[in-house]
Amino acid sequence: MLLWLRRYRRAALPGDIGAGIVVAMMMIPQGMAYALVAGLPPVAGLYASILPPLVYALFGSSMTQSVGPMAIVSLMTAAAIGPLAPAGTALHGVLAAQLALVAGAVLLLCGLLRLGFLASFFSRPVMSGFTVGSSLVIAWGQVTPLLGAAPPHLHLPSAALGLGSLALLVLARSWLAPLLARCGMPKTAADVAAKLAPMAVVLASIGLVAALDLPALGVAVTGPVPAGLPQLNLATSSAHWHALLQPGLLIGFIVFLISMSAAQTLAQKRGEKLVSNQELVGLGAANIASMVSGGFPVTGSLSRSAVNFAAGANTPLASVISAVLLAAALVLPTGWLALLPLPTLAATIIVAVLGMLQLDTLRTAWRYDRGDALAWLVTCVGVLALGVEAGVIVGVVLSMGTLIWRASRPHIAVLGRIAGTEHFRNVDRYAATTCATVLILRVDANLFFGNVDAVNERIEDELGAHPAARHLVLAMLAVSSIDTTALFALQELNDSLRARGIGLHLAEVKGPVMDRLRASSLPERLNGRIFLSTAMASDFLNPHQDPQ
Amino acid sequence: MLLWLRRYRRAALPGDIGAGIVVAMMMIPQGMAYALVAGLPPVAGLYASILPPLVYALFGSSMTQSVGPMAIVSLMTAAAIGPLAPAGTALHGVLAAQLALVAGAVLLLCGLLRLGFLASFFSRPVMSGFTVGSSLVIAWGQVTPLLGAAPPHLHLPSAALGLGSLALLVLARSWLAPLLARCGMPKTAADVAAKLAPMAVVLASIGLVAALDLPALGVAVTGPVPAGLPQLNLATSSAHWHALLQPGLLIGFIVFLISMSAAQTLAQKRGEKLVSNQELVGLGAANIASMVSGGFPVTGSLSRSAVNFAAGANTPLASVISAVLLAAALVLPTGWLALLPLPTLAATIIVAVLGMLQLDTLRTAWRYDRGDALAWLVTCVGVLALGVEAGVIVGVVLSMGTLIWRASRPHIAVLGRIAGTEHFRNVDRYAATTCATVLILRVDANLFFGNVDAVNERIEDELGAHPAARHLVLAMLAVSSIDTTALFALQELNDSLRARGIGLHLAEVKGPVMDRLRASSLPERLNGRIFLSTAMASDFLNPHQDPQ
Repeated sequence: MLLWLRRYRRAALPGDIGAGIVVAMMMIPQGMAYALVAGLPPVAGLYASILPPLVYALFGSSMTQSVGPMAIVSLMTAAAIGPLAPAGTALHGVLAAQLALVAGAVLLLCGLLRLGFLASFFSRPVMSGFTVGSSLVIAWGQVTPLLGAAPPHLHLPSAALGLGSLALLVLARSWLAPLLARCGMPKTAADVAAKLAPMAVVLASIGLVAALDLPALGVAVTGPVPAGLPQLNLATSSAHWHALLQPGLLIGFIVFLISMSAAQTLAQKRGEKLVSNQELVGLGAANIASMVSGGFPVTGSLSRSAVNFAAGANTPLASVISAVLLAAALVLPTGWLALLPLPTLAATIIVAVLGMLQLDTLRTAWRYDRGDALAWLVTCVGVLALGVEAGVIVGVVLSMGTLIWRASRPHIAVLGRIAGTEHFRNVDRYAATTCATVLILRVDANLFFGNVDAVNERIEDELGAHPAARHLVLAMLAVSSIDTTALFALQELNDSLRARGIGLHLAEVKGPVMDRLRASSLPERLNGRIFLSTAMASDFLNPHQDPQ
Repeated sequence: MLLWLRRYRRAALPGDIGAGIVVAMMMIPQGMAYALVAGLPPVAGLYASILPPLVYALFGSSMTQSVGPMAIVSLMTAAAIGPLAPAGTALHGVLAAQLALVAGAVLLLCGLLRLGFLASFFSRPVMSGFTVGSSLVIAWGQVTPLLGAAPPHLHLPSAALGLGSLALLVLARSWLAPLLARCGMPKTAADVAAKLAPMAVVLASIGLVAALDLPALGVAVTGPVPAGLPQLNLATSSAHWHALLQPGLLIGFIVFLISMSAAQTLAQKRGEKLVSNQELVGLGAANIASMVSGGFPVTGSLSRSAVNFAAGANTPLASVISAVLLAAALVLPTGWLALLPLPTLAATIIVAVLGMLQLDTLRTAWRYDRGDALAWLVTCVGVLALGVEAGVIVGVVLSMGTLIWRASRPHIAVLGRIAGTEHFRNVDRYAATTCATVLILRVDANLFFGNVDAVNERIEDELGAHPAARHLVLAMLAVSSIDTTALFALQELNDSLRARGIGLHLAEVKGPVMDRLRASSLPERLNGRIFLSTAMASDFLNPHQDPQ
C-alpha cells in the first residue's frame, strides 16, 4: 500500500500536477453527465469523483488509472434502481449509494478471496459487443434531453443549444488536436488540450445561458447545487437491499472488467505490472468510499485514464491532485453550475460514448474467427434487445459456454514410431508406423472433469478403429495435473478395459503427477504397467516391432 | 431413432422381458414414493412411469437407461412448486406437469442446439456432494410420515409399521442377496431378486392394513386411486409460467447430469456408446410426455437402470415392457393401492436414498486433492443450509470457478538448448543452456481469452528476470488455436515490445494456426520473424552461441 508514495521521486511531480489539472477539468463535465445517465442530480457525479480516486490511490495497483463515474456503469446503475425508485427522487440517490456499497463489498470480497483471475472472464469480442451495445443505449437515452423534447418533437432553443454543442464537440474531436499541432503545439500536448473541449463548451454554454436568460425560454438547466462537500449518506431502506444484491453483483463484475481492461492497456505501454487482486481491493474500497460520499458506482475509465496517462501522470498523485481540485471547486461558490444547460450535457455524453462505438474488434473477428464475431453480435444485440443487465448475463453465458466447449475438446493424437528412432509422433502429421496390437494415444491437455468424457469417447472410438489392440498406452507427457474426476474416470476405464481383456498402460508420467497418483489406488489396480518412456512401452508390449 | 428396434435380434428378448418385469415391480413402490417426495398423490408417480420411458425408448441413445421418477428431481420439484401451491392441491399437480414441460423444453432445445458437451459440467466431487446433501434432505423429510407424527412425537401404530418396514428393508438390503445366493441362486439373479424387497414389503403392508384395519387406528394410507390411465392435463395457469422458468432450467440441467452419469456408468460396462445430444432429446421428449400424462419431471436413475442392466436388459424394449405392465396395473382394479400405508412408503424412500449416501468420492478426494474435497463439502453444506436449488447454483459457481481458474494457469516453460543438439527443453527440468539476449518461452496451452492475461504476466515476469533479452521467441508447438482475444493480445505485446526495442519472434507455429494468422495483420506487423524451428530461431538470433 502506498508503495508509490514511499518511492516517490521529485522528477515525477510536474507530470502528476499537469495530469491532475487536466483530469479535473475533464471530470467536471463528465462526472455531471454520467450522474445524469445514472438518473441522479449532476452534483452526485462530482461527489463520486473526489473520495473514490483518493481511496483508490491508497489501495489500487495501477499508476495511471483514473477512477470515477463511467458511462456504462452509470447506465447499469439506472437500470438497477429505475424499477425501485423514479429517477431524481431522494430515494433514487440513497439506493445509488447503497448499490455502490454492494458492488464495492463484492469487489472487496473477491479481492480478499483472490479471485482476480476472473479478470480474463469475458473474451474481447464479448466485451466489445457489450460496450458498443451499451453505448448505443446511452446515446439514444440522451436524444430527448439534447433536443429538449422527445423526438419527433423538439424544443427549438434547447435543440439549437444541444445540436450546436454537439457540432462543436464533434469538430473539436476530429480537428482540434491537428489544428493545435499545426499551430506549433507538441502532438501529445495538442491531444491532451483537445480533451478539454467539453469543459470549454460547458463553460461557454453556461455563459450563453446567463447572457440570454435561456431558462426563461424553456431550456432546462441543472438547477441549484448544494455548496460544500457531500454529507455522509448512510440512510438505508432495508427492504431494498435484497433487490440490490443481484444488480450489485453484476455491476461489481463489470466495474472490474472495465477497469482491468483500461489499466492493462496503459500498464502494458510502460511495462508496468498490475496485481489483479489488489485492483479488486482498490476498486472495492473506491466504491465503498463512493457510497460514503453520496455517490454511485464508479470504475476506472479507459478514456479518462488514457488522458491522465498522455497528460504525463506518473503516479496516483495525479488522481489525488485532481480530487483535491474538484473538492476545492465544490467548496467555492457553485452558483455558476446551476446554469449548466442539460442539452449541452447531453451533447457531451453523446460525444463521449461515440468514442466507444468501435467496430474494429468486430471487423478483426469477422475476418479471423466467425465464432468470435457471432459472440460480439449476440452480446450487442442482447444489450439492445434485452437491456444492459441481461446483456451482461448473455456475455457470461457465452463466455462460460465457450470455456466449457473448449475444455471439452482436448487434442488427442494416435502416436506411431518414426522408423529407426526412439521418437513417437502423431500419425496424422508424420510418417510413423503403428502396431496393430498396441494403441498409443497422447492426450495434449490436463485431465479434469471438463474433458474426461471427451477423452473417454475418443478412446472408445480409437479402440473401435483398432479392433486388434490388446494394449492401450496413454502417453502423458503433456498432462500436468489429473483431478479427482479424471482419477475416477481412469479407474473406471481400467476396470472396463480389464473386463475386455485390454491392458491399460501409462508412459511418460510427469513427476508431480506420479507423486499424486501414488496417493491413490490407481497404480496398484492398474491392469498394465507404468513406463518411463513411450519407446520403452512399445518395445516391451510389441518386442517384435511388427508394423501394422 | 429406433435403430435398436430395426436391429433387434430375438436372442435379446428373454433378457428384455425379464428386466421389464423386474423394473415394473421396482417402479410401483418407487414411483409412488417419489411422487410423495414431490408433494403429489402417489398415483402421479405411476403415471410418470409409463409414457416417459416409452417416449425415451423412441428418442434416447442408452440401451439400459430406465427413465422415470427419481428422488432428487422430485425434491427439486417440491422445492420449485412448494412456494406456489400447497402440496396435495390440484394446482400443485398442474404446476408439476408444467414444470416437466419447461424442463423438457429446455432439454429438447439444448439437444437441438447440440449442447451435449455440458454433460461434463459438474465435477464428480460437486455431483457427489450435491447427491449426498439432497439425500439427507429427502431422508429427513420422510421422518414425519415414517413415525406418523412430527418428532419428537410419534404415532405408535404408524411408527411400528414404518420402523418395521424400515428394518425389513435394511435387512433385505444387506442380507437378502447373500442369503438367496447361499440357497443356490446365481449371484446376479440373487442381487436382482433382492431389489424386489420393497415391492414385497409394500404388498405385505397392504395386507396388514387390510387385515388389522389400521386406518381406523389412525395410520395414514394413500386413499382412493382413480382407476384407468391418466387424463391429458394441459390446464395452464399462465401467471405461474414465469415462476417456473428458473426452476425448470435448473431441473432440466440436473435431469441431464443425473441421467448422463447413470447411462455412462452402464454404457462403459458394455463398451456401448452414448450420444449426449441424443440423450438431451430423449430426456426432453420424456419430460414433455410426463407433462402430457399428468406426471412430473423424470430422469434416468442409476439405481433403477443398474437393476434393469443386471436383470438382463439388452435394449429399450425392457422399458417398453415395464411401461406396458404398469399401464395394465392401472387399468385393472386399483382398490388395493388405496390401502398402501404412508409409513411404509416413507421407509422405502429412506432406504432408497440411504443407497445414495456414499462417501467414497469424498474419501478419495480428501486423500487425492483437498480442493476437490472442499468442493464436495461446500456443495453438500450448500444443499443442507440453503436448499436444493441453491445447492445446484453453488455447484455451478464452483465448477465454473474451477474451470476459469484452471484455464488461467497455462503451463509456460523457459527453453534452453541441450548442448550439442537441436533440442530445446524446459530449463527447470533439463540441463539446457540459455543465452542472455534471446529469451525462448514455450506456452503449453491454446491461446484464448481465458489465459492471455496469465501469459502476458508471465512474459513480463520473464523479461524482468532476463533484463539483457533483446529477442523474445515464443515456441508455439503446443498451440493448436489462437482466438481473437489472444490475437489482439499478441498484437499489443508486439507493439509494446517494439517500443522497448525487443524483437518478438514465433517458432514452430502449427500449420492450421499459421493459416489462420495469415488472415490477420500480425505476420506483417510482427517486430521479428517466424521460424520453422526453435533451433533455427536460436541460431539466427544468437549466431555465436554465447551461453549465459
